[in-house]
Amino acid sequence: MTDFFKDMSRLSFDPDSTGLAFRHYNPDEVVAGKRMEDHLRFAVAYWHSFAWPGGDPFGGQTFDRPWFGDTMDAARLKADVAFEMFDLLNVPFFCWHDADIRPEGDTFAESLRNFEEMIDYLGTKMEASNTKLLWGTANLFSHRRFMSGAATNPDPEIFAWSAATVKNCMDATHKLGGENYVLWGGREGYETLLNTDLRRERQQAGRFLQMVVEYKHKIGFKGAILVEPKPQEPSKHQYDYDVATVYGFLKEFGLEDEVQMNIEQGHAILAGHSFEHELALAASLGIFGSIDMNRNDYQSGWDTDQFPNNVPEVALAYYEVLKAGGFTTGGTNFDAKLRRQSLDPVDLIAGHAGAMDVCARGFKAAVAMLEDGTLEAMRAERYAGWDSAGGKALLDSDFAAIAAKVVDDGINPQPRSGRQEILENIVNRFV
Amino acid sequence: MTDFFKDMSRLSFDPDSTGLAFRHYNPDEVVAGKRMEDHLRFAVAYWHSFAWPGGDPFGGQTFDRPWFGDTMDAARLKADVAFEMFDLLNVPFFCWHDADIRPEGDTFAESLRNFEEMIDYLGTKMEASNTKLLWGTANLFSHRRFMSGAATNPDPEIFAWSAATVKNCMDATHKLGGENYVLWGGREGYETLLNTDLRRERQQAGRFLQMVVEYKHKIGFKGAILVEPKPQEPSKHQYDYDVATVYGFLKEFGLEDEVQMNIEQGHAILAGHSFEHELALAASLGIFGSIDMNRNDYQSGWDTDQFPNNVPEVALAYYEVLKAGGFTTGGTNFDAKLRRQSLDPVDLIAGHAGAMDVCARGFKAAVAMLEDGTLEAMRAERYAGWDSAGGKALLDSDFAAIAAKVVDDGINPQPRSGRQEILENIVNRFV
Amino acid sequence: MTDFFKDMSRLSFDPDSTGLAFRHYNPDEVVAGKRMEDHLRFAVAYWHSFAWPGGDPFGGQTFDRPWFGDTMDAARLKADVAFEMFDLLNVPFFCWHDADIRPEGDTFAESLRNFEEMIDYLGTKMEASNTKLLWGTANLFSHRRFMSGAATNPDPEIFAWSAATVKNCMDATHKLGGENYVLWGGREGYETLLNTDLRRERQQAGRFLQMVVEYKHKIGFKGAILVEPKPQEPSKHQYDYDVATVYGFLKEFGLEDEVQMNIEQGHAILAGHSFEHELALAASLGIFGSIDMNRNDYQSGWDTDQFPNNVPEVALAYYEVLKAGGFTTGGTNFDAKLRRQSLDPVDLIAGHAGAMDVCARGFKAAVAMLEDGTLEAMRAERYAGWDSAGGKALLDSDFAAIAAKVVDDGINPQPRSGRQEILENIVNRFV
Amino acid sequence: MTDFFKDMSRLSFDPDSTGLAFRHYNPDEVVAGKRMEDHLRFAVAYWHSFAWPGGDPFGGQTFDRPWFGDTMDAARLKADVAFEMFDLLNVPFFCWHDADIRPEGDTFAESLRNFEEMIDYLGTKMEASNTKLLWGTANLFSHRRFMSGAATNPDPEIFAWSAATVKNCMDATHKLGGENYVLWGGREGYETLLNTDLRRERQQAGRFLQMVVEYKHKIGFKGAILVEPKPQEPSKHQYDYDVATVYGFLKEFGLEDEVQMNIEQGHAILAGHSFEHELALAASLGIFGSIDMNRNDYQSGWDTDQFPNNVPEVALAYYEVLKAGGFTTGGTNFDAKLRRQSLDPVDLIAGHAGAMDVCARGFKAAVAMLEDGTLEAMRAERYAGWDSAGGKALLDSDFAAIAAKVVDDGINPQPRSGRQEILENIVNRFV
Repeated sequence: MTDFFKDMSRLSFDPDSTGLAFRHYNPDEVVAGKRMEDHLRFAVAYWHSFAWPGGDPFGGQTFDRPWFGDTMDAARLKADVAFEMFDLLNVPFFCWHDADIRPEGDTFAESLRNFEEMIDYLGTKMEASNTKLLWGTANLFSHRRFMSGAATNPDPEIFAWSAATVKNCMDATHKLGGENYVLWGGREGYETLLNTDLRRERQQAGRFLQMVVEYKHKIGFKGAILVEPKPQEPSKHQYDYDVATVYGFLKEFGLEDEVQMNIEQGHAILAGHSFEHELALAASLGIFGSIDMNRNDYQSGWDTDQFPNNVPEVALAYYEVLKAGGFTTGGTNFDAKLRRQSLDPVDLIAGHAGAMDVCARGFKAAVAMLEDGTLEAMRAERYAGWDSAGGKALLDSDFAAIAAKVVDDGINPQPRSGRQEILENIVNRFV
Repeated sequence: MTDFFKDMSRLSFDPDSTGLAFRHYNPDEVVAGKRMEDHLRFAVAYWHSFAWPGGDPFGGQTFDRPWFGDTMDAARLKADVAFEMFDLLNVPFFCWHDADIRPEGDTFAESLRNFEEMIDYLGTKMEASNTKLLWGTANLFSHRRFMSGAATNPDPEIFAWSAATVKNCMDATHKLGGENYVLWGGREGYETLLNTDLRRERQQAGRFLQMVVEYKHKIGFKGAILVEPKPQEPSKHQYDYDVATVYGFLKEFGLEDEVQMNIEQGHAILAGHSFEHELALAASLGIFGSIDMNRNDYQSGWDTDQFPNNVPEVALAYYEVLKAGGFTTGGTNFDAKLRRQSLDPVDLIAGHAGAMDVCARGFKAAVAMLEDGTLEAMRAERYAGWDSAGGKALLDSDFAAIAAKVVDDGINPQPRSGRQEILENIVNRFV
Repeated sequence: MTDFFKDMSRLSFDPDSTGLAFRHYNPDEVVAGKRMEDHLRFAVAYWHSFAWPGGDPFGGQTFDRPWFGDTMDAARLKADVAFEMFDLLNVPFFCWHDADIRPEGDTFAESLRNFEEMIDYLGTKMEASNTKLLWGTANLFSHRRFMSGAATNPDPEIFAWSAATVKNCMDATHKLGGENYVLWGGREGYETLLNTDLRRERQQAGRFLQMVVEYKHKIGFKGAILVEPKPQEPSKHQYDYDVATVYGFLKEFGLEDEVQMNIEQGHAILAGHSFEHELALAASLGIFGSIDMNRNDYQSGWDTDQFPNNVPEVALAYYEVLKAGGFTTGGTNFDAKLRRQSLDPVDLIAGHAGAMDVCARGFKAAVAMLEDGTLEAMRAERYAGWDSAGGKALLDSDFAAIAAKVVDDGINPQPRSGRQEILENIVNRFV
Repeated sequence: MTDFFKDMSRLSFDPDSTGLAFRHYNPDEVVAGKRMEDHLRFAVAYWHSFAWPGGDPFGGQTFDRPWFGDTMDAARLKADVAFEMFDLLNVPFFCWHDADIRPEGDTFAESLRNFEEMIDYLGTKMEASNTKLLWGTANLFSHRRFMSGAATNPDPEIFAWSAATVKNCMDATHKLGGENYVLWGGREGYETLLNTDLRRERQQAGRFLQMVVEYKHKIGFKGAILVEPKPQEPSKHQYDYDVATVYGFLKEFGLEDEVQMNIEQGHAILAGHSFEHELALAASLGIFGSIDMNRNDYQSGWDTDQFPNNVPEVALAYYEVLKAGGFTTGGTNFDAKLRRQSLDPVDLIAGHAGAMDVCARGFKAAVAMLEDGTLEAMRAERYAGWDSAGGKALLDSDFAAIAAKVVDDGINPQPRSGRQEILENIVNRFV
């Protein structure tokens, strides 16, 4: 045992606790026919919790972690502490970028050796643990070589470097039994149109994603390939703007049956959407996969990656997840970081535990709303006309016939209340 | 002649004028091999200039126009004044919604009779004028029957009403020789997900647009079908969010070769994009059609529809239009309204004349930038690696081969300057 | 009795209800030593509930109310229905603008006669009711005469008209026993700096507000004078941008002890603040007065004025209200309107009842947080150093002495955790 | 000479140049009675150009500068290169934070020694140069000790550290003949209200600024004390939100005659204002001081600090500067940084040179507009009523008298056009 979390013990489920315990999340509680743990499938994000030093654009490191440093020893210590936290929180999953878990080498080959060694180390730790890999991903944005993009870089060598990196991360994810592989388009975008060839970069990105899918099949990886939309930041414009944008991209490159969405609350907000919008849209397009649960400060114009704390909002998100059939390979990854002033080890535990409780409350409320059925009944009633023979025939008709009918029948449709306030009151009975 | 614009005469081209004249827009000036008028293809928007009373959410009518009122006489007077303005400005095109040009009747049939009579009246006026129809469109959002959408309404009767209306508007556009037909998704969207079935509404919208295309072919309309994206307002979420979103929608319904984009500056801004982004993206996807030229106040979170006044911004927009090959059926429609405090007839003339000059300056700067060639040469140079044999081969390769090559060749790509400031300086030599 | 709310009866308090009843708001429940009704002091806004026709910038009236129309009979019917709703909801207060309650006359004098007659009518109704006047205010923004502002208008006659109007509204508020008088700066702002003289307009606004205060004292009105900040809309820029801005304005004109803030959630959001920020700031400056409770859609860039529905957010707002000492003359005015698709009378009741329940839940949570005391204890602990002798002395010192001490004592301060996640978890135990 | 800018020579004024030269900025050109250099008073920001490594929240250093490193030798090399750039650009001023110019020491005393040594070094370089100090300032935000604020920190020791630091920076600024001293409230704000005592922090900030002013007078510094507003970032909320907010703060602490504003374009945008709004407001309140000229990307929600490139916008800004009387101690500081992809030394020169040309064009246009006089004549005409006897008397009157007059005289004011489009057209004749 390291002594980073010294004096802390595994959090219990204790509804009356005022201290470090779960008040709502009980992994073994069965709701809607399944254990909460199996529904929610929580994951810790290695990068925020163990690799991020607490910097922001106006200041550097605030966290003082014993594992900071670019050595293999530090990487192992980081992994040791990480698995201690996974155990304290009893989280079933974690996620990583290659750059989170291994020191950068001087060459590609050296970085790869470090990476493979650390993958083995993580594998060993996983065997002694209950925590599995939800997904792996490649960091194609931090190093200066990626400053102008990875797959969409004007330099083919950087495309090659990125392809090689993703290959290795897919191999490692496969080896560790990861359930998904994620691509977030870090710097796939532009700073100015003046130096950008949109058409070329789109072709590069499309071909790259096709190669990901081809390689998945080649190695027999059974997990899902997930793309994570974000509209901007770090780039002025990011190509994977939102779910609708990525859908068009997938359609163009014939990938809509091969790739699903990993949807983040904070990215939805930055794109001008609610989280539930992005979830509902992905579900309606058949490309819902997994979520990055966090929250974006509504008054900040950048990605704040805070732990969720608003139960009613979280409930609406899980309501859409449930309507989409719940998670299969996906899960609830906390792509959330401590505030940079939250220096203490206990903050790391409290941040996750509070978020898990918020999610559990929201999830249970969502289950109750769905089981109650009123919302769905009212929705169905609103569209009932379309289930009638006349409604169905309309979509098979044509303009000339419809126009004749409107005049002949003297159609004069009357508006009906959308009942938004009543629906919101119903939701408030459950959250 | 009405006396609305009394004492005003046709605006001349006079570079030194400090009064009501064109200082930059000379329709007959030839640039890049074509008359300015034929490049820019200006259009006046009937709704803003003649139908809008000056209201906003906190106040009603400010404009005092002799043609306000719901009678056929008023509609004819409105048309008379409109054509007087077209002549004063010497604009080659105008655009309308059905509701702009005819009084609403008590029934669909009566509204249609009013509409057809006014279409004939406009046709007669057009014969005596140089002004043609750039596009027609249907107002499917103002009347309360459309409060929950038109094609995406939960009530099939409203879908039917909307289909019949669009049919009639397409017929009229065709009859008047219109060069395009536009669909802006007024209230095709939602206020709350709680009462919305995204999947159904998307199917309805897709089928509706297919019917538009089918009907176009049926009647032999040769113009373009244009969809105009907007992210929100009046609805909280509008389905035709932006160009990328509409592209995915077109792909899903097999319409990407049949439908193009009518892109508005203000809508781009509301969606979190620059105008030139939306133009460049549409061009790169092969769906660029036409523009609604206006400007959105950068500090206002709603659609302000102001006349453009910033030449450098307009120049970047036309640069993308030119790179897309310029307008074919499309044009520059001023979807711009006077500020509601601009009460006087002269304001209406000044608003358009100033905007036409701003566009002319921007357009000429764009032509000069393109003819200079430096920007495009620098862009091409930046991607030159992709034109090499190695670059081309890369896209045909696969991850395993690429990864092997990266390691074997010891690839270590170095970043190169993106040169944004230098590019911006080059632009500033022309604007 | 009118038949607008036919078949509805006064809402009861029934925690288990799934229908039209209060599940959380019990006016007679005593918390923190006072009845809930006396804490929360709910008020209905006449304008949204009875005067607004359901229009938005892209469409007109959707509501079909029997009292719409510009006659005294209609005004009386409107009042009758309003008081029926006050009774159904058992709300202790309401609020009005002059323009909400009387038809506009052809002259100032006629409008005034209509107004005075309706004030008498309302007075009679109030006598037979439990509902009192929280505040009155003047509509100085809807009529076209106010298009360029009221007190800040370039035309002194409009300043005069506005002054006369406010005088009459203050008289009426006084007569009806109103507890506050409110000024919201409707169009006190500008569309373009190009036609605006900021210095003049500020002087006009300052003098106007001084006259309000002088007149209050002259007539012996004991209620509070409240200014309601808003950053924009309808104007591009509104002078009363936010609480901090208004504070500077009050200081300049010597009014900081005479005027307090009426703070609206939606306006806070539009200004880039959280609601609780504005409340806490006003309290810290000694100018907190009352609240306009509503919510702004976080994805909409305009004032959406929705009924509140998020208990955790509402709890944080009331927490600040309680820390400020609770309401004295102020209260919780629902400056909230139905969605324009919510056509039915029951929507009006449901909107208010749901909001009252959300407020009651939030308020009770806020009381519990304050009584628990952990949050305040942690806050005090964080600043404890400033209560020490050294901390106090520091503020009385000077730079030279402090700098000498820093060097001499070898001061090397270490950061301490801000504990944000722990604090958020504490809040989540109560909401 | 270092070899960083090898092969580059001092930029000339050459209107026809397509390379590295000034096409518009001629320091010796006399406009409005003064040399351009003396009007514009350009300054280079040491931090962006020489200290910033090119990082952003998703990636680290991109720039590869020979002077990076925490040694005195590196600091001297940095200064050498800086002065070479000042000479290449012929800029009359520069600005620094203490942290930009000296390596951090292990103790306060050691940092101070480093700082004083570097101040002497800069002093020597300035003697051999034409470049003077526009202002100095203290970096109270980058080091982790400032993570919870400087003057507003909950820990008095950090207040003390900050006070001592500002004292030393003021001494140094005074020693180098700096013309202003600037305070930007880096982390004076909060991340969450839950751990914040707004009242205490405001008192601390107020007392701190009083000490600054006291110390200025004590040492006989004749320059201006400038506060630079910013609404958010890095903190969720920054106390010096905008000009109006700071004005209220100055009034509360009796500092409105002692402190002026340093206004940044990008900060104005983040606060929901145009740049010219903040300038005009400061001028109208008598607290205009200096500007940080840059631009914020309109689609990015964070501080992008780009070089200005839009002449019409810059012209409107200088128009307000000119109306405020022009700069006295203030100037045009380029608080602008290269894009992180702009790696080359030539980018640094091009960024500044292009910006200086944009400013020169904008400034000359502003002078021409003011000399033309039409805009000001139209503004005066709009308010002419207030210059009449009746207008003046109105402000000395009271509500009762005004109300009587409105009724007695049958006042019925009519709106007049605000003429916004005509005014915008006038501006476009000059930009």
